Amino acid sequence: MHKGIPIAIVTGATRGIGKAIVKKLSQQGVSCLGIGSSMESISGITTNDHLHFTEPNQIHRSMAIDLTNWPQWTRRQQQKDNKLMFKGYQYQDPATSSSSSDADATIRTEICKSLFDSQWSSSNPQHRYYVNLLVNCAGITQDSVSIRTSTEMILKILNVNFASCVTLSNLTLKKMIKWQNMIKREQLTPPKDVPSPCIINISSILGQGDITLPGTSIYSASKAALIQYTKTLAQETETWGIRTQSMTPGLIPNTDMIQDLDQVTRNQLTKLMGLNVTSSEVVANDIWDRYIRRDN
Amino acid sequence: MHKGIPIAIVTGATRGIGKAIVKKLSQQGVSCLGIGSSMESISGITTNDHLHFTEPNQIHRSMAIDLTNWPQWTRRQQQKDNKLMFKGYQYQDPATSSSSSDADATIRTEICKSLFDSQWSSSNPQHRYYVNLLVNCAGITQDSVSIRTSTEMILKILNVNFASCVTLSNLTLKKMIKWQNMIKREQLTPPKDVPSPCIINISSILGQGDITLPGTSIYSASKAALIQYTKTLAQETETWGIRTQSMTPGLIPNTDMIQDLDQVTRNQLTKLMGLNVTSSEVVANDIWDRYIRRDN
Repeated sequence: MHKGIPIAIVTGATRGIGKAIVKKLSQQGVSCLGIGSSMESISGITTNDHLHFTEPNQIHRSMAIDLTNWPQWTRRQQQKDNKLMFKGYQYQDPATSSSSSDADATIRTEICKSLFDSQWSSSNPQHRYYVNLLVNCAGITQDSVSIRTSTEMILKILNVNFASCVTLSNLTLKKMIKWQNMIKREQLTPPKDVPSPCIINISSILGQGDITLPGTSIYSASKAALIQYTKTLAQETETWGIRTQSMTPGLIPNTDMIQDLDQVTRNQLTKLMGLNVTSSEVVANDIWDRYIRRDN
Repeated sequence: MHKGIPIAIVTGATRGIGKAIVKKLSQQGVSCLGIGSSMESISGITTNDHLHFTEPNQIHRSMAIDLTNWPQWTRRQQQKDNKLMFKGYQYQDPATSSSSSDADATIRTEICKSLFDSQWSSSNPQHRYYVNLLVNCAGITQDSVSIRTSTEMILKILNVNFASCVTLSNLTLKKMIKWQNMIKREQLTPPKDVPSPCIINISSILGQGDITLPGTSIYSASKAALIQYTKTLAQETETWGIRTQSMTPGLIPNTDMIQDLDQVTRNQLTKLMGLNVTSSEVVANDIWDRYIRRDN
């Protein structure tokens, strides 16, 4: 019988909150698939910084998907074998790998794999990797009033902050349902201490409605959409035993997203937020707590 | 000196709430530009039902714009003279028209005009028509759970219910600002009793967060996005003396939008809504009250 090993998919994994999340999850022994926008961006993902190895059979992957390019990236027919194939890397701990030579270095192999691929580890055919957590974390910001925001920018914000999250949720849910059904059908015992499948969509305090900031109309709207989408989705997925939640972090001053804003907007944001200031690490810890909390 | 005559632009004007709105506005003497999805749909717009004539120089137009096809429909370079040109009709009251013959019939002429065209009435060159009200009313609904909603459907819902509203708001705002500046610069007296410029975005009670209904995840999200967008936009447009608001009507059982849903969803919706049931006419009256209320 296969042993199931859960995987977490995290978008926007190269920096900011996404980086903190893959760090936390991998430190807790979860195998991570970190998604970044390009091969260049994911080439910056490093082990011991982004990714850690603390469990046997833990493997990580990164994958380049340009989420601004929705719905193009979702088109199966453009891909090999009618699957969604993307370029990326696989990271393996030499200490537990058969081809190990130097225990300090990580083995990083360039791969081109489908988004959902149960054969993560060809060296361990008895292990079955399956997606158990999706964190939609990738987001792009805005710092221009609505009438000065180009159609191209509106499109990009909607595609990354909302539409790609919907597609990733739908694709992941189908796999989660399949796995849940397989556990029931084959009367498998789910791996010990593994929480029920979970989707967490990272929204923003600006999507909640209490705080509005000129120059963020589309960004705030996309984050409000994500909250409302998740509320309805949670009702839909409940029957399959899948938890769906959104999170609305406050201002995280040290992320590149905030640093990219002009000084005036940054000052307004800091003033408005008041005590709603947090850090990537706090958000990552919160994600972990939500994931392992079985009763929610 | 030109006399200014305000125009209202209303999307989704062929049926449902949009039809009730152009009816109300035209009965109050406002010149209306009703937008429908195609020449076929706007060919159903009739005078005395959709459109009325109660003021001299009142003229109406309809225009075919396929809002599902965003951002394609927003591309100026594809259009004549670098303007956004669309096909449509012009409706004129024979009683006030120089080419009148039969006072009972309305003169309907096929036109191809740019979206913002100050020369509405070539027969009255002393009158200057200008946009003073935009009502984003067009919307499409959903009745499938998220994992069974196609990418094509997600795209259409987002394009009609949100992205097209953003573009129409931005295009209209630029014209409204120009007109406001002209009034100041040329020290024109604004036409008597004409309210300040106003944008009203029609959202839904499902976009507010209190009520969620399985099978409406993307629809609800798009409506939540519209509410949040409008909140920030209102802050941005305040300095130009332009009012921006959103409305969240309850369930309107007799619209085609609701009739198109399956019986199960309709029953659930009716049950959930409780007392939040309204009619197209009540919404149209509310729009009129909001428009003429100068102090808001």
